[in-house]
Amino acid sequence: MNTESEDRFAVVYVRLKDGVLDPQGSTIERALDDMGYQGIKQIRSGKIFEITFREDGGGKPEELIDEICRKLLTNPVIEKFNFEIVK
Amino acid sequence: MNTESEDRFAVVYVRLKDGVLDPQGSTIERALDDMGYQGIKQIRSGKIFEITFREDGGGKPEELIDEICRKLLTNPVIEKFNFEIVK
Repeated sequence: MNTESEDRFAVVYVRLKDGVLDPQGSTIERALDDMGYQGIKQIRSGKIFEITFREDGGGKPEELIDEICRKLLTNPVIEKFNFEIVK
Repeated sequence: MNTESEDRFAVVYVRLKDGVLDPQGSTIERALDDMGYQGIKQIRSGKIFEITFREDGGGKPEELIDEICRKLLTNPVIEKFNFEIVK
């Protein structure tokens, strides 16, 4: 994470849509159960992308993020995303 | 995500520590550059875990999350985490 300059900074959160199977989450649930943690009902996994923009990037970060999320960072068939512009 | 009941719900955010190499992030940076997106300086990847607790789980969710993060969900050598209890 590069925060010492004036670069814009954003965080994208990618989650599986409701109903989509999550093998990673299920595996963690089983592992926790095996380890004796009975208090957990469900675990769903997702991804974070922290994006630092160039100062001279131009354009609106919101539109750029939306575009690269749809084209590269997520699979829109099974994943949903939201993001926040941190600065 | 199960939100219709009274179950406690928390979100854990796992990120690589500063200075740790992030091959996934680097690959995405290169891919975006190849796709013509010049406005992005750096991408760092991370993970999300959405945790639903059992109603009768007992104990403090904060302590449970901290423990399972250290024991299973993260590699404390290279990753850092934070979490929020959503409800």
